[in-house]
Amino acid sequence: MKHYSYFRSSAAYRVRIALNLKGVDYGQVSVDLVTAEQKAQPYLALNPQGLVPALELEDGTVLNQSMAILEWLEDTYKTPALYPAAATQRALMRGFCLNIACDVHPLNNLSVLNFLKDELDAQQEQLAAWYSHWVCRVFDAAEQQVATDSGKFCFGNTPSMADCVLIPQMYNALRFNVDVGSYPTLMSIYEHCTSLPAFASADPLKQSDNTDQAL
Amino acid sequence: MKHYSYFRSSAAYRVRIALNLKGVDYGQVSVDLVTAEQKAQPYLALNPQGLVPALELEDGTVLNQSMAILEWLEDTYKTPALYPAAATQRALMRGFCLNIACDVHPLNNLSVLNFLKDELDAQQEQLAAWYSHWVCRVFDAAEQQVATDSGKFCFGNTPSMADCVLIPQMYNALRFNVDVGSYPTLMSIYEHCTSLPAFASADPLKQSDNTDQAL
Repeated sequence: MKHYSYFRSSAAYRVRIALNLKGVDYGQVSVDLVTAEQKAQPYLALNPQGLVPALELEDGTVLNQSMAILEWLEDTYKTPALYPAAATQRALMRGFCLNIACDVHPLNNLSVLNFLKDELDAQQEQLAAWYSHWVCRVFDAAEQQVATDSGKFCFGNTPSMADCVLIPQMYNALRFNVDVGSYPTLMSIYEHCTSLPAFASADPLKQSDNTDQAL
Repeated sequence: MKHYSYFRSSAAYRVRIALNLKGVDYGQVSVDLVTAEQKAQPYLALNPQGLVPALELEDGTVLNQSMAILEWLEDTYKTPALYPAAATQRALMRGFCLNIACDVHPLNNLSVLNFLKDELDAQQEQLAAWYSHWVCRVFDAAEQQVATDSGKFCFGNTPSMADCVLIPQMYNALRFNVDVGSYPTLMSIYEHCTSLPAFASADPLKQSDNTDQAL
């Protein structure tokens, strides 16, 4: 199984965490988003959508969209379960995940920030305001949701899909200097998760295609 | 079961189609996005995320995020199945759906267009270019994907989650005058679907809170 990934992509980061939590053995292929490898061949033939991540299965099938890949992992590798067994609880967790996957991440990824700069002449300060706005809109509600639970993870005391999605988003929020002072519960979950091997080894700076800092 | 909805919301439109296809009896409560009812009480207490749709179940549990609601409907009402039974095929369809749900819709909804206007001083022409850009990026790949199938629906000859997601996005693309000339297969699926009662009765203009035109 091959994971087409880029160290900075927070959607790929989600998939790395889930693969690690499930204990799945996989290879990683780097797709450089800065040089736009994702929009050129040979990657485009694998994933016409031109985005990372993608997961190439043993039979050659290529899955795209991180949330679809997470669902496939859950369907295929039953333990440890990363969604609750009951349909309603599962739907509530999916809602939590999709608040981030639909209403934060797509607005704040590289292609969008580039479009704002290039086509709408947005300045650094405006980009920072844009970035924070979408993070905080969702984190405000997420903090409220996890604070009523008070486990070590987003939902209780075992890791779940919610943590696979929250941790990369929090990582990005910190990188973009979003003021996270109003999110003590989310931050404590972030600190707990990133201390665990499955999360720590998925960290962008630990990936072999990391061009930012020494491993 | 109560569906908190707004006639123009394409995420709510997805849920209406799925409810109709599953034959589920439900009540609809309108949340006016133009007067920002979704960001005020009493709606905010139901869905702190402040977005439509939400689905209030018989036991009072409130689900949010249209894609989580669609999954819950599939988990709860088994027939007609709207996802394929095989995990890999299901993942491919989820990928198709999430291309739209993550990489088009969140970028083109009302709150984002308002932010672009108010905070980045975007003009009508720039807003139209923004809108088309995100639709076409995904529709280019979607057209390729469905054209190789050639059924009456996105995947074969029965309606699926893919149709629940495509139809509202195509409806919106047409409303925003996106040039859809390059998407003949998507358009023929749109025309076929919208001729069917489950889709036709979910049409925004057929909803009782439609303020645009006579029913």
